[in-house]
Amino acid sequence: MTATPAPFTADDYRARMRRAARAAADAGLAGVLVAPGPDLVWLTGYAPPADTERLTLLVLAAGDDPEPVLVVPTLEAPDAAKATGAPALTLRDWTDGKDPYAATAPLLDASGRFGISDNTWAMHLLGLQRELPGTSYASLSEGLPMLRAVKDAAELERLAAAGAAADETYEEILNVPFAGRRERDVAADLAELLRRSGHSQVDFTVVGSGPNGANPHHEAGERVIEHGDMVVLDFGGLKHGYGSDTSRTVHVGEPSVTEQRVHDVVREAQEAAFRAVKPGIACEDVDRVARAYITEAGYGDRFIHRTGHGIGVTTHEPPYMVEGEKQPLVPGMCFSVEPGIYLPGRFGVRIEDIVTVTEDGGRRLNNTAREMAIVH
Amino acid sequence: MTATPAPFTADDYRARMRRAARAAADAGLAGVLVAPGPDLVWLTGYAPPADTERLTLLVLAAGDDPEPVLVVPTLEAPDAAKATGAPALTLRDWTDGKDPYAATAPLLDASGRFGISDNTWAMHLLGLQRELPGTSYASLSEGLPMLRAVKDAAELERLAAAGAAADETYEEILNVPFAGRRERDVAADLAELLRRSGHSQVDFTVVGSGPNGANPHHEAGERVIEHGDMVVLDFGGLKHGYGSDTSRTVHVGEPSVTEQRVHDVVREAQEAAFRAVKPGIACEDVDRVARAYITEAGYGDRFIHRTGHGIGVTTHEPPYMVEGEKQPLVPGMCFSVEPGIYLPGRFGVRIEDIVTVTEDGGRRLNNTAREMAIVH
Repeated sequence: MTATPAPFTADDYRARMRRAARAAADAGLAGVLVAPGPDLVWLTGYAPPADTERLTLLVLAAGDDPEPVLVVPTLEAPDAAKATGAPALTLRDWTDGKDPYAATAPLLDASGRFGISDNTWAMHLLGLQRELPGTSYASLSEGLPMLRAVKDAAELERLAAAGAAADETYEEILNVPFAGRRERDVAADLAELLRRSGHSQVDFTVVGSGPNGANPHHEAGERVIEHGDMVVLDFGGLKHGYGSDTSRTVHVGEPSVTEQRVHDVVREAQEAAFRAVKPGIACEDVDRVARAYITEAGYGDRFIHRTGHGIGVTTHEPPYMVEGEKQPLVPGMCFSVEPGIYLPGRFGVRIEDIVTVTEDGGRRLNNTAREMAIVH
Repeated sequence: MTATPAPFTADDYRARMRRAARAAADAGLAGVLVAPGPDLVWLTGYAPPADTERLTLLVLAAGDDPEPVLVVPTLEAPDAAKATGAPALTLRDWTDGKDPYAATAPLLDASGRFGISDNTWAMHLLGLQRELPGTSYASLSEGLPMLRAVKDAAELERLAAAGAAADETYEEILNVPFAGRRERDVAADLAELLRRSGHSQVDFTVVGSGPNGANPHHEAGERVIEHGDMVVLDFGGLKHGYGSDTSRTVHVGEPSVTEQRVHDVVREAQEAAFRAVKPGIACEDVDRVARAYITEAGYGDRFIHRTGHGIGVTTHEPPYMVEGEKQPLVPGMCFSVEPGIYLPGRFGVRIEDIVTVTEDGGRRLNNTAREMAIVH
């Protein structure tokens, strides 16, 4: 177990809010609006007890002085005041029965264009659009996609620790029995191992055995794993507030020639995509490299998802390694590289590492063997 | 333990989608758009494994034939196909790298006004607004607030069972020791008792002792409960897919005259608001009755939240008993009646029952004693 990193401070959050406000100005936005969720956690450390129909919204003005205001329901104000980032912002509360959009409007430039966090409820966006018809909006992933994408040293330390913890989990899971147990039993083992390795939150524990592996989003079910099964393992969560996410595909007993071949294709595609990572290439190029390799091998139509997604305070965020994403890679970005091949009714294979962009290439935050492990 | 109710069928979901489509036509909407969340659960039985940036959207055309289409990411299509309501709708999947809004647009009237589920991500609403600039939108709680508000017999059966289970929990918690234990220990007891009474999900277990009770959204913390404390208990979750939510305020040992007086005021205000419930009166009237009573008693400025919220497949939904909500009560509506008084630095009192509107009044779904219980 590694040492616990020093906690973030109000100054850390103040610096992040300033960074966001400057980026907003550069992007031609009048400000940034952030509802509860990962952006708010990242900017302020505040996570309300529940995400409800009551408006909670951080307002940052674009430019050198963001003058951060957190609009909160009166009855959540005491919780908000306890957030680590609270000293770096002003609280403005509104009471049930009052119009929270009217309370927010004076904080906004009535003809401005604002970046708004992706997961803000539509009802809140519609409330702002109605109250301030001269405003316009872009989702943060469109208007400010880099907001959380480039990690600083303190964040990289946490992501590396989360990756190492996920790697420990994988090493341990190879020792548990697979044949004769249900997928959900192995999934429970994964969850237990993730917690034991320091994860405070388990987000997913995919165990896709045999034909279930051919559904990339299959979680884990009642199916009893059999000798001869391929098994896709994909698991992750949060440790010290930052995410892990890794996949390996194992085999119960000796694989067939076809199984070995498909696994080799995915492993080599993953290797090729990883080697392509370096500053300046577009996100879509990472996807293209993996997809070209798999297509060349004859399985192009069986690779039915994008190659990767960013990771940080969530296990799923920009940047996305997907066709059409022109964003160039920048040192400090962290994302998954996870090609797969899915043969309906038969099996699936996926291999995934978190990769961070360095000055001259990429560095993997998952480092367990990618060759197909034999389990029992 | 009551009998398990018969599960909902595809026909039940088909009927709900038809009801929604007809209500949309009556409200002048061209259709209804529903993202993952309680509305989607209620209309289709489908709850995706995770709510992500990938668009999942149910599209219902207004009128007598909703022609339901569920737009889903390709890799979630197998899960969606397994939903109970799937036989009543058409799946249309879109693949990573394609524009999901362009895929959705042909399903929509390009100049229509649509109701959209409150919690739809803003990024998805912005995507639709960009793809179809001639469309306009209203949140469902604004455009179709009654969509899930009036419960049918099968739903009332579930809500009554959830209420009875919460009542069992309250009766049991009176027997546990309070003094000398942390709030979180009592909260853990509440969670355990809720599960034992048949709840599949625990949503909240508020234990607000002494001064913590004065924060209505305080959950439960490290504070050790002392002899002489008032303790607000507010707990609930889901049983058979429907919600419970009840509050009682107890006292560790004998209360002071002031504590007893404040508790009496809240209890009488709750009784008065309950007696006001009947078809035809406005939601805000329920709030006004409770608030007038508390104001008359001199605590008007210490009642800092609305009087109630609806409950169904969630523990928090329309209709809201709040000033400004003109919606008339209709038989079958279910909501909380929960006035409170909060004295900062001292204590709080809240008393809450779920109430359903009958043909000629109201019926409580929580029926434990509302007098202040003495605990130890």
